[in-house]
Amino acid sequence: MKIIPSTQSTQKLISRLKLKHKTIGFVPTMGALHEGHLSLVRKSRKENNITVVSIFVNPKQFGPKEDLALYPREEKKDKYLLQKEKVDLLFYPSADEMYPKGYKTYVEVSDFGRGLCGPIRPGHFKGVTTIVAKLLNIVTPDRLYLGQKDAQQAIMIDKMIRDLNFPVKTIVCPTVRENDGLATSSRNVYLNEQHRSEAVILFKALTQAKHEIKSGLQNPQTVIKNMKSLIEQCSSGIIHYIECVNAENLIPLKELRGKILIALSVSFGKTKLIDNIIFNN
Amino acid sequence: MKIIPSTQSTQKLISRLKLKHKTIGFVPTMGALHEGHLSLVRKSRKENNITVVSIFVNPKQFGPKEDLALYPREEKKDKYLLQKEKVDLLFYPSADEMYPKGYKTYVEVSDFGRGLCGPIRPGHFKGVTTIVAKLLNIVTPDRLYLGQKDAQQAIMIDKMIRDLNFPVKTIVCPTVRENDGLATSSRNVYLNEQHRSEAVILFKALTQAKHEIKSGLQNPQTVIKNMKSLIEQCSSGIIHYIECVNAENLIPLKELRGKILIALSVSFGKTKLIDNIIFNN
Repeated sequence: MKIIPSTQSTQKLISRLKLKHKTIGFVPTMGALHEGHLSLVRKSRKENNITVVSIFVNPKQFGPKEDLALYPREEKKDKYLLQKEKVDLLFYPSADEMYPKGYKTYVEVSDFGRGLCGPIRPGHFKGVTTIVAKLLNIVTPDRLYLGQKDAQQAIMIDKMIRDLNFPVKTIVCPTVRENDGLATSSRNVYLNEQHRSEAVILFKALTQAKHEIKSGLQNPQTVIKNMKSLIEQCSSGIIHYIECVNAENLIPLKELRGKILIALSVSFGKTKLIDNIIFNN
Repeated sequence: MKIIPSTQSTQKLISRLKLKHKTIGFVPTMGALHEGHLSLVRKSRKENNITVVSIFVNPKQFGPKEDLALYPREEKKDKYLLQKEKVDLLFYPSADEMYPKGYKTYVEVSDFGRGLCGPIRPGHFKGVTTIVAKLLNIVTPDRLYLGQKDAQQAIMIDKMIRDLNFPVKTIVCPTVRENDGLATSSRNVYLNEQHRSEAVILFKALTQAKHEIKSGLQNPQTVIKNMKSLIEQCSSGIIHYIECVNAENLIPLKELRGKILIALSVSFGKTKLIDNIIFNN
């Protein structure tokens, strides 16, 4: 596995590979890798000649009240895991490499940040779309692999890609879960034992909601109310939001029809978790 | 010359050409082509295997008070001129092709629109950077050719390209002028005889300013005042702005040193003209 910190060297290398007709799969990450990330890597390895992973803890997607410094960093372990998965190239830039002095340009998808995590993370998604636009121009992949765990992020990035005509196909992969249903996340390490066992309620609430809708429940507000009750009865979690939205444009649903995204954010102690489920009805 | 209205067909064709190791030069235009555009085409033809021109009158770069419908459209003549210059591919999309229903994504370079044409054309540059980002993803050129006539636009696009890591080199070409010094522009056709002969004062004022600075004049405000006097004495033009700024970041200069951009906008009747000069001091 080659490890390159420079944007220009990465662009040169990948441009040479493309002239040799190699297809490029790309998995952007912020490190602290877990099975969710590795499932994307494995999918990319299956579908492309070359798999590129980036690790960059993007300062611009941390809100004013979010602690960039506390985000888990596990450089050695991450490199070991990617090596083991036979990743071809790890792009590992510094913040100065990505945002040199006088940096000014931002990419924004309007309206897609109105609901869900948008209001509680001001500036977050603008930071996400901007860094992904940069990474796509550096790596110029044929296929981009994203996890469904961050559904709003994946849907927004795919919208940006289609709107701005980036020549890349977005592939959203299923959320990887622990045996008890908890979605794998870099933040799970911060949960204490009690919170870890309570956190399983998120997936249970999502599964209950899907079951209710499939059984004929038609009112999104009732679905949300039932989820709220379940989470509050069975855990000490603080609910930030539970929403039923259209999985293509993230607009809240009045009728539970079409491609439905049910997403939630709940804090256990200081650790904010998100999870979601997507299905057709 | 191939004429293609579809983004996907253009992307496919160019991706095939790049696999054959062809280099791509790109000249984005809004049509109504004149010698300025053609000089960019000729430069691209010299430096690349394939030259792509786009014609798209971008609705998103017209301000609320600017008349998109009145922008000159000369499809037949434009095609004839590009054919004659042996352009390989003309990308000629519709507004629906570029901005399908539900379009949401914008690219913006902060601060670079604060001065010059920014305040008098709200939203204009956001429209420009957004369409150019789209066109770069569709055409994926090695070199992008822009005219110095639209200096603020060229400097802002180059900033966007560097900030977002687009793998393309920006080449800014000198302003092409009529025999009497007037910069060629699609808008010149709207000038009546009197205004046409008065409009030469713009280039005279710019030349005078450069001469004064090179002769030792050190105060930007005096330079601007002298230009203003000259234009007001010799013409009926209404001055929108005259500014001396740093040609790299567009910040107004306190000292006339470094790479200087002197730019102005003056209306003759209903026709707003711009011109500029760039030099080192």
